[in-house]
Amino acid sequence: MSETPVSGGPVSDAFLADLAAASHILAAQGVVDAFGHISQRHPDDPNRYFMSQSMAPALVTPDDIIEYSLDSEPCNANGRNSFLERFIHGEIFKARPDIISIVHSHSPSVIPFGLVDEKMKAMFHNAAFLAAGVPVFDISEKFGATDMLVCDGDKGIAFAESLGEKDIALMRAHGSVACGDTLQSAVFHAVYTEVNARIQHWTMALAGDRSVAALSEEEGLLADVPNQGACIRAWGLWRQRVREDVNW
Amino acid sequence: MSETPVSGGPVSDAFLADLAAASHILAAQGVVDAFGHISQRHPDDPNRYFMSQSMAPALVTPDDIIEYSLDSEPCNANGRNSFLERFIHGEIFKARPDIISIVHSHSPSVIPFGLVDEKMKAMFHNAAFLAAGVPVFDISEKFGATDMLVCDGDKGIAFAESLGEKDIALMRAHGSVACGDTLQSAVFHAVYTEVNARIQHWTMALAGDRSVAALSEEEGLLADVPNQGACIRAWGLWRQRVREDVNW
Amino acid sequence: MSETPVSGGPVSDAFLADLAAASHILAAQGVVDAFGHISQRHPDDPNRYFMSQSMAPALVTPDDIIEYSLDSEPCNANGRNSFLERFIHGEIFKARPDIISIVHSHSPSVIPFGLVDEKMKAMFHNAAFLAAGVPVFDISEKFGATDMLVCDGDKGIAFAESLGEKDIALMRAHGSVACGDTLQSAVFHAVYTEVNARIQHWTMALAGDRSVAALSEEEGLLADVPNQGACIRAWGLWRQRVREDVNW
Amino acid sequence: MSETPVSGGPVSDAFLADLAAASHILAAQGVVDAFGHISQRHPDDPNRYFMSQSMAPALVTPDDIIEYSLDSEPCNANGRNSFLERFIHGEIFKARPDIISIVHSHSPSVIPFGLVDEKMKAMFHNAAFLAAGVPVFDISEKFGATDMLVCDGDKGIAFAESLGEKDIALMRAHGSVACGDTLQSAVFHAVYTEVNARIQHWTMALAGDRSVAALSEEEGLLADVPNQGACIRAWGLWRQRVREDVNW
Repeated sequence: MSETPVSGGPVSDAFLADLAAASHILAAQGVVDAFGHISQRHPDDPNRYFMSQSMAPALVTPDDIIEYSLDSEPCNANGRNSFLERFIHGEIFKARPDIISIVHSHSPSVIPFGLVDEKMKAMFHNAAFLAAGVPVFDISEKFGATDMLVCDGDKGIAFAESLGEKDIALMRAHGSVACGDTLQSAVFHAVYTEVNARIQHWTMALAGDRSVAALSEEEGLLADVPNQGACIRAWGLWRQRVREDVNW
Repeated sequence: MSETPVSGGPVSDAFLADLAAASHILAAQGVVDAFGHISQRHPDDPNRYFMSQSMAPALVTPDDIIEYSLDSEPCNANGRNSFLERFIHGEIFKARPDIISIVHSHSPSVIPFGLVDEKMKAMFHNAAFLAAGVPVFDISEKFGATDMLVCDGDKGIAFAESLGEKDIALMRAHGSVACGDTLQSAVFHAVYTEVNARIQHWTMALAGDRSVAALSEEEGLLADVPNQGACIRAWGLWRQRVREDVNW
Repeated sequence: MSETPVSGGPVSDAFLADLAAASHILAAQGVVDAFGHISQRHPDDPNRYFMSQSMAPALVTPDDIIEYSLDSEPCNANGRNSFLERFIHGEIFKARPDIISIVHSHSPSVIPFGLVDEKMKAMFHNAAFLAAGVPVFDISEKFGATDMLVCDGDKGIAFAESLGEKDIALMRAHGSVACGDTLQSAVFHAVYTEVNARIQHWTMALAGDRSVAALSEEEGLLADVPNQGACIRAWGLWRQRVREDVNW
Repeated sequence: MSETPVSGGPVSDAFLADLAAASHILAAQGVVDAFGHISQRHPDDPNRYFMSQSMAPALVTPDDIIEYSLDSEPCNANGRNSFLERFIHGEIFKARPDIISIVHSHSPSVIPFGLVDEKMKAMFHNAAFLAAGVPVFDISEKFGATDMLVCDGDKGIAFAESLGEKDIALMRAHGSVACGDTLQSAVFHAVYTEVNARIQHWTMALAGDRSVAALSEEEGLLADVPNQGACIRAWGLWRQRVREDVNW
């Protein structure tokens, strides 16, 4: 274990509360169950990020947030356990300076698209970011038979390579990772990936051998512009519901 | 921007409360999530309509309702933002004097029928109005690659043309619009379009290559008569649930 | 309108409370939405039955219960409206002395089996009563194009003929009717017909062209014996939930 | 009826509270409805086990727990009724000393895999234990037409033989049984069998004739190791929710 990394500096109570609330939102929206996690890059130091200790997302409070280096070493663990798969977050933050927040989940409707040779596509404008393509990471290609977890830096790097320049990638027989250039955008991407997957299942069943008029790549780029505002509106609704529940 | 249009005159508190409650009902019934909107024509001036400011439907209160001209210019914005897609409402109200209320949603079970060449049909009597046929509007046919939104008068006109004399039309890779000759009827149509879509998905899966004994057009017309009363009963139940929740 | 029929005599408060609670249970279990109704034969007079006035099941209280003759004429309407389709109940009570309680619903998963030439079968022991066979009533066979409602005595008689000696029958493009020799049994049959339909949809999808090892008719008869006790246990759970909610 | 067996000795209040809470958890997670049961082996006497009296799982309290011999004779019935199918538990506890807790349910998404010749497989790492294979017990093979219940020792023995060395087995046209080497593990297995079944249904529908990249048997063994910790985390979340509800 390397030396404890130094903090990137204090962050506001509101920052920590929003990050903790994001965990509750993902649970309320059916994206995470007892598992899954969301991280956010340090607002003042791009080489640090925040994520809760290893626990069920629906129980996270601001006091559970830990700061990490991009090697996913905790700055302030204080006896708290870290998620085994924090390397997903650290390695994406290294490889993709544009990404500010990352959600990892086992969102159930999405899993089939990582098991079958059928690509996720954007079924409607709120999921426009999917029109850029949805890569699938199969951990066995590089690492053989494993416990499926992205539980060290090498696996994190390999996953980040699969992700490439997208904001979403699936993990075979495991789950998916949704990213965003804000906390709100990462949550929005995670939620609408699951919603889109549900819609796509019914669409594929209905289509049979017929074609599906999904968003084109160009439509996806255009529709993603108003989604910036849509994302703020959705966050406002979801954040208020958490506040009603937990009082922070 | 043209001059601010004058109001069609004051409306009752009950009118505004019912319109705000309709947003909550649509959210509770799973027709809208953070997005979607419902409008109602001014009871005294057919050239004006009401709709909430741009916000999540589940949070709308009577104070959020804005009055619009049929060109979708706000009469009393007072700094409140308007929905980008209000032109759906204004242009339908222009083209269809019989329509009093309009719901736009991304109701998830309905979306596949806008992506695949398979028409929605009436699976049961409560959705009888679907037996008249359900047109699909593909914005790309007239406007090429866009952000998919009906965000100006021209697109609103094109959508209203697709709607024609029906009370429902789908929008490819986007959502749908349900109309009614009362507020209650528009809500009823929106809810039972979603319910019918869920039933039709299972019916198509069960049928495979076999035929589906959906309502005939004649049965649809006949079954729509008792639905006028059914609609009032459903509204009564849903409105009471909102009242228990928000106290107006 | 014939003369007001005389009452079969007073019933206990507990009788009326249980019948009202059954409406709430059916709503809570997803069998009914704003529509559907449950009736119970008079405990002292087989020629009378009880059913709520025309209203949403989730709002029914004991004070909403009306007594009817088997011609479905109200004994004590006192200005309250009757369900249009009460003739379903009256005509079954006439034709089937063994039946004590009847549920009519538009239970959504069941509707596809009335639209496609594919019979419902018993997917598991709790739905054993389905193994006897599930007839489908198509109102158009005898009455041509209608509003689909069983809204008079002739249609009620025709439906009761379709039902025959079964405890369940579907109505094409409309819904279904589940019966029982007790109030609890009718509710149990209605709930498990919907549960079974959901399971059968997934089973048919999984099976494709392969066979489905549903309960045989003999297994159905045998499994229905312990279901008498199961039905009481389920009722106990559901009835307690209503009591927690409405305090009667 | 043989003589009343003697108790294996007193257990702690916490032991009984956790076992009762497990029933509530299974109900909250949609694994059981009014039916199904969970047992736990006596911590000090491997020849005794505990299970609630015959009642709906969501209503169980610590006072409802009965102690049984492995012949499924109650030690302390005190007038309370036993589940008809307690022999499932007793005979597995006899045959499999490694098993500490057993869940029997009619978990709905799982039932189709007992009706069709299509094996359940592990769709993701949280359901890794399924990768070892999921046997199906058809009671009719040995016992002919029955009421489908495992209601005596002989049927319990036959079921335990079908289970073999697995922790899960399905029962044709009935339900399934999930086992674990702790209470928490049995609950985890039961919950993720149902979750996995939902995912597998959509995966099979999406795949059509194409292959499904489920967990290999080796991946299943490896992924099951971190699931020991995952199981504790899930239990922590679910147990807290019960405590908020019932105060024990």
